[in-house]
Amino acid sequence: MTRQGGAGAGGAAPGTPIRIVDVETARSSILSRRRHDADYPPALLRGLERRFGARTTPEQAVARIVEEVRSGGAAALARWTAELDGVEDLDPRVHAAELQQALDGLPGALRRALLRSVERVREFHRRQPVASWTTHELGGTLGQRVIPIRRVGIYVPGGSAPLPSSLIMAAIPARVAGVEEVVVCTPPRPHPTILAAARLCEVDEVYQAGGAQAIAAMAHGTEAIAPVDKIVGAGNLFVTLAKRQVYGLVGIDGLAGPTETLVIADETADPAWAAADLLAQAEHDVLATAILLTPSREVAEAVQREVERRLADIDRREQVESSLTHQSGIVVTPDIETAVALANDFGAEHLCLSVADAERWAEQVTSAGGVFVGEHSCEVLGDYVAGPSHIMPTGGTARFASPVNVLDFVKISSVIALDAETSAALAPLAAEIARAESLTSHAAAADLRSGGDDV
Amino acid sequence: MTRQGGAGAGGAAPGTPIRIVDVETARSSILSRRRHDADYPPALLRGLERRFGARTTPEQAVARIVEEVRSGGAAALARWTAELDGVEDLDPRVHAAELQQALDGLPGALRRALLRSVERVREFHRRQPVASWTTHELGGTLGQRVIPIRRVGIYVPGGSAPLPSSLIMAAIPARVAGVEEVVVCTPPRPHPTILAAARLCEVDEVYQAGGAQAIAAMAHGTEAIAPVDKIVGAGNLFVTLAKRQVYGLVGIDGLAGPTETLVIADETADPAWAAADLLAQAEHDVLATAILLTPSREVAEAVQREVERRLADIDRREQVESSLTHQSGIVVTPDIETAVALANDFGAEHLCLSVADAERWAEQVTSAGGVFVGEHSCEVLGDYVAGPSHIMPTGGTARFASPVNVLDFVKISSVIALDAETSAALAPLAAEIARAESLTSHAAAADLRSGGDDV
Repeated sequence: MTRQGGAGAGGAAPGTPIRIVDVETARSSILSRRRHDADYPPALLRGLERRFGARTTPEQAVARIVEEVRSGGAAALARWTAELDGVEDLDPRVHAAELQQALDGLPGALRRALLRSVERVREFHRRQPVASWTTHELGGTLGQRVIPIRRVGIYVPGGSAPLPSSLIMAAIPARVAGVEEVVVCTPPRPHPTILAAARLCEVDEVYQAGGAQAIAAMAHGTEAIAPVDKIVGAGNLFVTLAKRQVYGLVGIDGLAGPTETLVIADETADPAWAAADLLAQAEHDVLATAILLTPSREVAEAVQREVERRLADIDRREQVESSLTHQSGIVVTPDIETAVALANDFGAEHLCLSVADAERWAEQVTSAGGVFVGEHSCEVLGDYVAGPSHIMPTGGTARFASPVNVLDFVKISSVIALDAETSAALAPLAAEIARAESLTSHAAAADLRSGGDDV
Repeated sequence: MTRQGGAGAGGAAPGTPIRIVDVETARSSILSRRRHDADYPPALLRGLERRFGARTTPEQAVARIVEEVRSGGAAALARWTAELDGVEDLDPRVHAAELQQALDGLPGALRRALLRSVERVREFHRRQPVASWTTHELGGTLGQRVIPIRRVGIYVPGGSAPLPSSLIMAAIPARVAGVEEVVVCTPPRPHPTILAAARLCEVDEVYQAGGAQAIAAMAHGTEAIAPVDKIVGAGNLFVTLAKRQVYGLVGIDGLAGPTETLVIADETADPAWAAADLLAQAEHDVLATAILLTPSREVAEAVQREVERRLADIDRREQVESSLTHQSGIVVTPDIETAVALANDFGAEHLCLSVADAERWAEQVTSAGGVFVGEHSCEVLGDYVAGPSHIMPTGGTARFASPVNVLDFVKISSVIALDAETSAALAPLAAEIARAESLTSHAAAADLRSGGDDV
């Protein structure tokens, strides 16, 4: 790369959809994580008022849908499907023959690609070490039994871009974990590719139901849909709010927000590849975030030019431009170390390291859903075929949360089988602490095990 | 045990606080799991109205507290501490010297018991296999990095029965996981034993703050309390509702409800021990559940008599009787197999197997937070010193949730480091699926990796 005339100190020409900014500017804008939810867009609130009455918040609308499906079952689900999806008198069950038909109808190349995706996701998750264990070193047998969750529901969004890959990325880890019943809900009139993917993943039941009403149906059950034990998968705002509301009754994998990618690139990176990766991210959603961090102003400017060039004849241009303008940017950092530190603070869903010695930098990452090491491991490969699930923590939740993995589909049961001798030795200690907690019946139960008097 | 005259077919004398019932009665009463939250007690709602205004729900009250602490910081925390705990002008920080002082002031026997508890909980959790892994069999390097969560907050209830053991049961697994900063919040004027336990567990920061305001302070931070990444530990209704509301901003371990124990006993069990275990459970809380399942009417009646005998001079008698009368009971089952099946449907927090061949029956358990195998392994030993954490899933959440363990204090970062050859081989497959999802910029980014034209 040779130095070329840039757009001046700010680096951005007016109207350029992806700006070059310094670290301080980035920290207070695109890299800031607000510690509370953003206000809802006025258009969304107006839409809610029309349907649910004045001053209805999204939470209240979702609470109403969830409660009606809980108490009203299949009829309430049908009513909300008619109301919100505009589909009347829908039998939500998609039958096995339709799944097979969808698979049979798939073009050969797409079918082979999906099959390869299924295989690699399965091969990856089969290697995850998840097993029961016991120890006999603490007196008797103590341990943890790992047990598959019995019945799991997967939400697969429909809408403008159907995502059969999201089905694979949840259903296969569930299958590897040994889940007995895997159920999918996806909005009415699902794309055949979603149905084909369900068939490839040997999903047990598929229902056409979307939004908060689908989450409520899976959590509470209806006459036609047995309730599940856990719900996994991302969706829109209503799906996310519904998952929060049913959490506790069922397990959930997390609360998904808009998707995010950070790319750290140095002068060894190909600006065309980095630009393509940012644009791929930006096409997801107007709220998607695509940020490049680089210590090289040359790289920054080259990527910016490349983004502009590609934008000229890109699909979904308006959406891509909105994402690039509002949540995205190119940040020039003093060095790679600073870029990695910024990435750790941000805790991105995806972090791509297109730098020399990428393996070494990867070891410095403490907060990211997925780390894509080297520019050959681009995020798009992770989205479809690399192996790890593409359902990763967003919104900074990588501070505490993990990508979907086999552990999401099992639970632990602690096993406590003390031998009589250990029990007798420990009982007086338990009684001592119990008395300090004013729990005298606890102390009494312990005293019996220490051979104490029958009180 | 010899057959003795019982209380007739129903097995229960009028006014007996623990009844003997059959399976069908139990299924529709004490063993039923309502699939939605119970209504709140009128007294609680009246209390809320007095403080928060007419028709305020607990959720709304908690939302107000959380929002005020978020926006008002330390001053709002102090205001709610004064309002709800009746303590004015409180500096929430408990200093290291006070922790040491509390430990130094502990009676020797209690100190030794707590130390032994800490050691065994540590030894148990150190054996839990939690490790990063990689594979080179799928082209390049793929794997999962396991990374400790950086800063964790533990809520330790105060109130009538201070529970230093709960602090140990969360803080030690966190320490084993490698959490850098372990923070404790507990209601104002904490019991010295809680402070001593914090010192023994090498907790980094202790704050006297309780209820929803403490959860809000840990999630959002104040001028004096840095925000945490995850909150763990049980509390009252307000604590639980606050955890639900801040979930997503921070991680949480789960939403705790009242504690529950199921004891399955056969004729090899000592009725006095079984009765003591039920009473220990019942003394926790008026909402606690203590249920005996037995195929032997003799055992049922003997345990009932033993409970009655012990009730005569028990501490907290009113509370124990309320728990026994309303949520508890003795269920006579056709056989052990039926008892285990009922237990699996119920998904109890604690399941105690006081039966012959208990190890074999333990293998049939598919849903329980902890399984206590054999009558020497009583729940009270698990509460304090056995090793596994006593913070276990309640309310049927054992269907999908686990006891607190090392995995609660780590997160996974997926590592995707494909080699160039694998990347080039997979890229056309990714592009194929991307086009099926109408994501053409995804396809373009993949095409670049397959050596395709720079589009």
